[in-house]
Amino acid sequence: MLTEDQRNELVQAARTAQSQAYAPYSQYNVGAALLTTSGKVYLGANVENAAYPVSLCAERVAVFKAVTEGERQFQAVAVVTRDGGTPCGSCRQVLAEFTLDAVVLIANEAGEVVREATVAELLPGAFGPTNFNVQP
Amino acid sequence: MLTEDQRNELVQAARTAQSQAYAPYSQYNVGAALLTTSGKVYLGANVENAAYPVSLCAERVAVFKAVTEGERQFQAVAVVTRDGGTPCGSCRQVLAEFTLDAVVLIANEAGEVVREATVAELLPGAFGPTNFNVQP
Amino acid sequence: MLTEDQRNELVQAARTAQSQAYAPYSQYNVGAALLTTSGKVYLGANVENAAYPVSLCAERVAVFKAVTEGERQFQAVAVVTRDGGTPCGSCRQVLAEFTLDAVVLIANEAGEVVREATVAELLPGAFGPTNFNVQP
Amino acid sequence: MLTEDQRNELVQAARTAQSQAYAPYSQYNVGAALLTTSGKVYLGANVENAAYPVSLCAERVAVFKAVTEGERQFQAVAVVTRDGGTPCGSCRQVLAEFTLDAVVLIANEAGEVVREATVAELLPGAFGPTNFNVQP
Repeated sequence: MLTEDQRNELVQAARTAQSQAYAPYSQYNVGAALLTTSGKVYLGANVENAAYPVSLCAERVAVFKAVTEGERQFQAVAVVTRDGGTPCGSCRQVLAEFTLDAVVLIANEAGEVVREATVAELLPGAFGPTNFNVQP
Repeated sequence: MLTEDQRNELVQAARTAQSQAYAPYSQYNVGAALLTTSGKVYLGANVENAAYPVSLCAERVAVFKAVTEGERQFQAVAVVTRDGGTPCGSCRQVLAEFTLDAVVLIANEAGEVVREATVAELLPGAFGPTNFNVQP
Repeated sequence: MLTEDQRNELVQAARTAQSQAYAPYSQYNVGAALLTTSGKVYLGANVENAAYPVSLCAERVAVFKAVTEGERQFQAVAVVTRDGGTPCGSCRQVLAEFTLDAVVLIANEAGEVVREATVAELLPGAFGPTNFNVQP
Repeated sequence: MLTEDQRNELVQAARTAQSQAYAPYSQYNVGAALLTTSGKVYLGANVENAAYPVSLCAERVAVFKAVTEGERQFQAVAVVTRDGGTPCGSCRQVLAEFTLDAVVLIANEAGEVVREATVAELLPGAFGPTNFNVQP
């Protein structure tokens, strides 16, 4: 359960991260901040490519940073865009590999949380490690 | 609204498609059959790659076939796996670009539908074309 | 070895395929035509998504169509764009899974082949099935 | 131009990074270490997913970390796998967006560099930002 302060800090961290986006193709800058259960915060921003399919979203950059530093469980992730856009299906899938009950805070440019839901609510009946008898 | 016959035919088509999977890495064969609003059925199977990230799922193969033949609206898609696995988040995202109210029939190896939901239900609050003021 | 007629036909097929692109985000329409060793031609066009990373390139659409109809070996692929753009690294990777010696014809909007090379030349020392002892 | 010490340090860093891989599906652990022109080293490891296509390679994790910390130019990247596997086409594409003349050191489990080439050599005639008149 996040405190009001933790929520605010996480959204502010995502706003800071947003300024690091490399998005010359979409001009749609996204910032993300991921809070692990160990209490650390990992930042992410989207990084695009002329070949659009190898672009990567902000949320996944944050998750991949955390996982490659040994983290496997997340408490929450805040995502900031100009219009309060939600995480795409691929990002939900990557979050779901590790933690279905993490809270996703979706905020607009002003930092207002316009939607809030768990990963499980955003990707009901997720395909995941159990389909391969894998335990993250 | 699908008739019982249409549902059965779609699931059977997906089972047939499953045999065309190229899945030497996961050994997890997936078949999909997509029914467009124009009444045509497009088949798909997963095609993997030694570099896992460029693998593609069955559902998306079917959608990409349909779209590159001029289709933009879907009625339903059936997906068959050995264990009734659901479409991954990326496949939900690709379906959502075109039709949020398409019905997804999720079946196991025996052809039994173990779960049924619309794309919108599987990817609530989907990120999509409206975030860019695009009309598919 | 392709005849001049086969080359021309393949490039023309790719130009036709280009008109089927769904590219509202990049406005960069790509067409592809893949000739299998069995003599069939499969068409592809790029299909984009508001979530850029789940977009797919024309070349891969053509390959996935062919593979899910039982094809595993390719003779050649023609790619057409407005500026003679080359296949991206991911498309080269997907082609390399199946045939390293397939010829890639890269053409501009006028249908002129501006570059020609094998898959092996476009992706030297490719990572592939042999890294996993897999035989496509 | 890398010194012998820089090369050795970069390969050793990649070996360390390899231990952070999350690869329960392929059991193929990859480590990467990216040296930016500013002199910093960013580590990466592969992070897989039950839905194989949203897995990510080690090289890209390192690039995305660097780019979201403001880096845009790279000197070199070392990649370590059990068998001296090369970077996949998608990773070459992501590197090519930023620096074509970066050196890629490809090493095996013992830390021996078995292949060395620039990004431009690994992805000749790369599709890239210039196709969209973008300057990274």
